[in-house]
Amino acid sequence: MTARPSPVSRRRLLTGAAVAGLGAAAGAGTVAATGQETPVPVAVTQPQTFPTGTAAVAFHGPRQAGVAEDPPAHAAFVAFTLAAGTDRRALGRMLRLLSDDAARLTQGEPALGDTDATLAALPARLTVTFGFGPGLYRAAGRPAPIADLPKFRIDRLERRWSGGDLLLQICADDPLTVAHTQRMLIKDARPFAAIRWVQQGFRRSPGVQAPDHTQRNVLGQLDGTANPRGPEIDPAVWNEDGSTTLVVRRIRAEIEKWDMLSVSDKENAVGRRLTSGAPLSGHEEHDKPDFTTVDQSGLPAMPDFSHVTRARVEDPTQKILRRPYNYDDAPNAAGLPDAGLIFASYQRDIARQYVPIQQRLADKDLLNEWITPIGSAVFAIPPGCTEGSWIGAGLLS
Amino acid sequence: MTARPSPVSRRRLLTGAAVAGLGAAAGAGTVAATGQETPVPVAVTQPQTFPTGTAAVAFHGPRQAGVAEDPPAHAAFVAFTLAAGTDRRALGRMLRLLSDDAARLTQGEPALGDTDATLAALPARLTVTFGFGPGLYRAAGRPAPIADLPKFRIDRLERRWSGGDLLLQICADDPLTVAHTQRMLIKDARPFAAIRWVQQGFRRSPGVQAPDHTQRNVLGQLDGTANPRGPEIDPAVWNEDGSTTLVVRRIRAEIEKWDMLSVSDKENAVGRRLTSGAPLSGHEEHDKPDFTTVDQSGLPAMPDFSHVTRARVEDPTQKILRRPYNYDDAPNAAGLPDAGLIFASYQRDIARQYVPIQQRLADKDLLNEWITPIGSAVFAIPPGCTEGSWIGAGLLS
Ligand code: HEM
Ligand code: HEM
Repeated sequence: MTARPSPVSRRRLLTGAAVAGLGAAAGAGTVAATGQETPVPVAVTQPQTFPTGTAAVAFHGPRQAGVAEDPPAHAAFVAFTLAAGTDRRALGRMLRLLSDDAARLTQGEPALGDTDATLAALPARLTVTFGFGPGLYRAAGRPAPIADLPKFRIDRLERRWSGGDLLLQICADDPLTVAHTQRMLIKDARPFAAIRWVQQGFRRSPGVQAPDHTQRNVLGQLDGTANPRGPEIDPAVWNEDGSTTLVVRRIRAEIEKWDMLSVSDKENAVGRRLTSGAPLSGHEEHDKPDFTTVDQSGLPAMPDFSHVTRARVEDPTQKILRRPYNYDDAPNAAGLPDAGLIFASYQRDIARQYVPIQQRLADKDLLNEWITPIGSAVFAIPPGCTEGSWIGAGLLS
Repeated sequence: MTARPSPVSRRRLLTGAAVAGLGAAAGAGTVAATGQETPVPVAVTQPQTFPTGTAAVAFHGPRQAGVAEDPPAHAAFVAFTLAAGTDRRALGRMLRLLSDDAARLTQGEPALGDTDATLAALPARLTVTFGFGPGLYRAAGRPAPIADLPKFRIDRLERRWSGGDLLLQICADDPLTVAHTQRMLIKDARPFAAIRWVQQGFRRSPGVQAPDHTQRNVLGQLDGTANPRGPEIDPAVWNEDGSTTLVVRRIRAEIEKWDMLSVSDKENAVGRRLTSGAPLSGHEEHDKPDFTTVDQSGLPAMPDFSHVTRARVEDPTQKILRRPYNYDDAPNAAGLPDAGLIFASYQRDIARQYVPIQQRLADKDLLNEWITPIGSAVFAIPPGCTEGSWIGAGLLS
């Protein structure tokens, strides 16, 4: 699951560099070691091996990639509606094609019949994560391990951002890689399914901050502090068979209203300091919030209705793994932003882990004044697959 | 005009890091040198000084930034329509506000009254370039140095991507920096102008390729090879007073049709090899195209109607500086991509340099089969300004 340079694509890149006479930049020693300096009539100007470009994440394994790794800078969430009459056999064909091409593309190899193969060369930590919605299980004639969320009173859901039978979550540190991968995989799926929605999101660019640094979201908040990390991820996220589940909520931020708040009002809404991310009961970002601490006026330092107070979970098997991306689409004519979070949450069990938190937040969370869920979708994330097999084989073959 | 770390923001970042006990990562020696370790009650978790995040481009100078530098990874082109009755005085007020905030934000400082000041800390080579459309000159009661392009037979222009009285071209290596800057500057302009259109585009992420490496565009072509560089930029781009002009064309790519071509058909359409970018008459990317070379069948190696043959300019004062960004919006329900180029071109004089090239391309360019201009706008880029002054002062004060 950890990022590693793909040997295959590195070899090809280095060979290309050698042919183009870029040996110095690419490292002449390594080039000689490939033993592949096939003479080519025209010089091949291949990208040099800049590590952000050539880093590849393994596709095959017991668990899918794109969940536990540090989220890359760019993501496209592509949800499909299956064509009427798509049966088990057709599903199998589609998922074989998709798994096969996802395996290639994530390793920096062109898709089968890739019509723009040159764009495949730099995976930039590309991951493709497959999610199965309730409709896919209906088409497969199998009981679904996930169900739509209950309605919450804060929801203003729009159909154009909700539901979906199949999801491809495409993440990479490079937006062109995401664009090309999205295009190739949509081509694979098109005979079997229509696009339901596509949500494109971003985090900080590679190299802007240390990888382990909590990032700010589009509202300016440090977002991700209390996320499970390292050994805490397993009990929260992964089932024994390597499966997990995903909730994708599109949450619009009323940024103009948020902007009118004072810093301390913003801090009270979240329960953490704006600059440091420290809980209002503490001093450092990773101090554990203490809900018994009172401030000078005798009130709880962590307001009862703050987002963190309401969302807090102590039991490691009840936690969720948040993997949000920012969106910032074009503002309207009056200049009001259309921005917010593509809030993606991974957990073993949606009903047991996600729903209680979301229910507490929907009941009362100060942040609700400034955020509105406008899209919602749930997906089972089936286990990964071994080389030669495909995602969904366990369900469909 | 060259990227340099901003001393101001670096100092603040380092101080923050020191307080948070991140001295080791940020370089303890430098921290001591700032002499600013103000004791703060809560730990400040500031971003570490990752160079991609802290790099700043000077705002003040005889020429505006955002033209001659290597284009950063992300761009928002924001075009405004002036409110009816916006006169010279109002224009001056607006441009003073905008220049002032652009100067701050590009140096990693919050805008005046920045409501999300924490997001200003990482400029990531942020540039804000001001463009004045014909309507701004009308409002100012001054003759415009630019005029709308003539109509070309290939144009399928849509109003929603065309025209504009004022343009802000916001570029940075980080998408969150672009989003925050866009939001702050739109707030400044809002009392005076409505949003006409916003186009968001991308190039490769920082660190994916060497900065001097030609990038591929969303069609997979190496794009930028023959661009003026270094000393070639001055005669093509900058007028004596530090001004230049900008054409922004939104050009949709018919990628699905393009995808049906063979590699050699793609190469003939452009006049260059797909992998190497070499002209069809040559071997290496930077070989000069030779229009007299013939192939085995006696035909010109560079087809008469290839994009490069048609676009080629030898006179250094007739060249244009292309600064295109890719766009890739959500595909439609059938899965057809909505992608192409935000084609931005800088030159001293649009009529003398841009129009003749565009005319030759409109008349016959094989590439026209697969690209369609759907938006068009022209802007004068006034000279830069010194500290304390503002962009447009020469025109309006
Ligand atoms: C636009 C919407 C949202 C924003 C801006 C937001 C923002 C934040 C922020 C700033 C924090 C504190 C820092 C951190 O630990 O990451 C936080 C924590 C948290 N949020 Fe959200 N959040 C949003 C939606 C949600 C939703 C929909 C859920 C789940 C239903 C959720 C669950 C949590 C949890 C579990 C925590 C950690 C609480 C703890 O254990 O300390 N958030 N959120
Ligand atoms: C989607 C639209 C376009 C695409 C995909 C495209 C693509 C390319 C490619 C691949 C090259 C060869 C490599 C290079 O030198 O960069 C090129 C060259 C060039 N293009 Fe375009 N182009 C587009 C639109 C335009 C437009 C609208 C103009 C100007 C009106 C233009 C002017 C030029 C020029 C001047 C050259 C360099 C020719 C030379 O001196 O060798 N292009 N373009």
